[in-house]
Amino acid sequence: MRVSGEEAAELAAVAEELADAARVATLDWFRRPDLAAETKLAGGFDPVTAADRAAEDRMREILARRRPQDAVLGEERGRTEGTSGLTWVLDPIDGTRAFLSGAPTWGVLIAVSDARGPLYGIIDQPFIGERFRGGLGRAEVAGPRGRHPLAARGARGLDQAILFTTFPEVGTPAEGAAFRQLSQQVRLTRYGLDCYAYALVAAGQIDLVVEAGLQPYDIHAPIAVIEAAGGIVTDWRGGPAQHGGRVLAAANADVHAAALAILSGADAEGF
Amino acid sequence: MRVSGEEAAELAAVAEELADAARVATLDWFRRPDLAAETKLAGGFDPVTAADRAAEDRMREILARRRPQDAVLGEERGRTEGTSGLTWVLDPIDGTRAFLSGAPTWGVLIAVSDARGPLYGIIDQPFIGERFRGGLGRAEVAGPRGRHPLAARGARGLDQAILFTTFPEVGTPAEGAAFRQLSQQVRLTRYGLDCYAYALVAAGQIDLVVEAGLQPYDIHAPIAVIEAAGGIVTDWRGGPAQHGGRVLAAANADVHAAALAILSGADAEGF
Repeated sequence: MRVSGEEAAELAAVAEELADAARVATLDWFRRPDLAAETKLAGGFDPVTAADRAAEDRMREILARRRPQDAVLGEERGRTEGTSGLTWVLDPIDGTRAFLSGAPTWGVLIAVSDARGPLYGIIDQPFIGERFRGGLGRAEVAGPRGRHPLAARGARGLDQAILFTTFPEVGTPAEGAAFRQLSQQVRLTRYGLDCYAYALVAAGQIDLVVEAGLQPYDIHAPIAVIEAAGGIVTDWRGGPAQHGGRVLAAANADVHAAALAILSGADAEGF
Repeated sequence: MRVSGEEAAELAAVAEELADAARVATLDWFRRPDLAAETKLAGGFDPVTAADRAAEDRMREILARRRPQDAVLGEERGRTEGTSGLTWVLDPIDGTRAFLSGAPTWGVLIAVSDARGPLYGIIDQPFIGERFRGGLGRAEVAGPRGRHPLAARGARGLDQAILFTTFPEVGTPAEGAAFRQLSQQVRLTRYGLDCYAYALVAAGQIDLVVEAGLQPYDIHAPIAVIEAAGGIVTDWRGGPAQHGGRVLAAANADVHAAALAILSGADAEGF
């Protein structure tokens, strides 16, 4: 979708209002002793907190007022149809396990997307007070050390690359095996940062994030921010990542190609 | 060592000056595009950055001026003898891999200890601007959300506990196996936070941290902060943790005993 300058400014302003509201709503609950997790899936640990719901509800109220023509897809409240061709894709707390543990590595994910993918995205870490913005001609972070442009780092060999994922098991056993093939080639593998790892790709700090089993709302905002910073986000076959599933985020084309050769090869061997 | 009220105030004030200096020195280098890691151990990845050395040197200059009678043990510059019976134990950047990755989970560790162990400690996260203090009658955190007392959380079953460690492999294969025995009993296991995980025990957010292969300077400050908040830090047999090695940090006596039963039992089986 072609977006006018006026429309771009409006979308960015609305995204900012959403992020501000979500920051307040999530911090109301972060590190509260009485924070009670619920279990969404029987047998699994998928906590849904009051913070999650409160943040999404505040964002939906803003969108109903300011962008009633747009669709909304949120982790907590599902899909609301629109007429404009634009969809706001919201994950009020990406990294609920980090949130429940008091770790400052969860984030609020906000994107506005058309049928081809995200146009603009925000990754916000409310506790640190750090906000990564990308798309519609913008690529910047504002945080404790001021405001800086975002630029993914330049090409280097896999043996010099830093790789992140959230869970050591990554996904299915076959997905985990593919990840470990890649992990054995890189300089350093780190775990546990949720969406903050994608922000570190955009900030030029790390080279690769590889995950599996993602939902669309997990990845729309990271795609917008990383691509605006010059990076690349695809699935493990090099196709679009916006539908979730297996995701490969890379700082540049060279390290993307090197990682893709390993992940897609593993794929061909039968998982 | 018995410390007078006046001496306690002096030690806490010096620790604060050290943490302030280390905050400036480390942030000078954090996320700098030209940050160059050196390799300390051939074949291993043990980056020592200019930030590490700069921060320790600034802290040693302050100690030479304000506490010339005390010994110093630092990660980068080794041991300097003293005459007072007190030793300042410094890790200018705990979590160099996190630091090199731009992740805000590394920390500056500062403790002042006598022969029996740490009297006072600080865990500081300079980028977030968050400082955890414990010992000499104090247990508090000051950060983006203000100043709050620290209190480790109350007893709950292992099946409700949150467990952290930094690396999924933990240590040797046998140490990793013992960790996994414990991990299978808890509600949630998370990775990758370095010293910040100990701060989360003191802050009442998580129940357990288990690590192996630690150095004394990795654990003196966490011991002081966690014990001041009501928690317990020992080795995997229930003995003192101040010498490093295998460490078990727990929010309370019950969860400590439950974890120790697993880790010490695994130990008896031959690693």
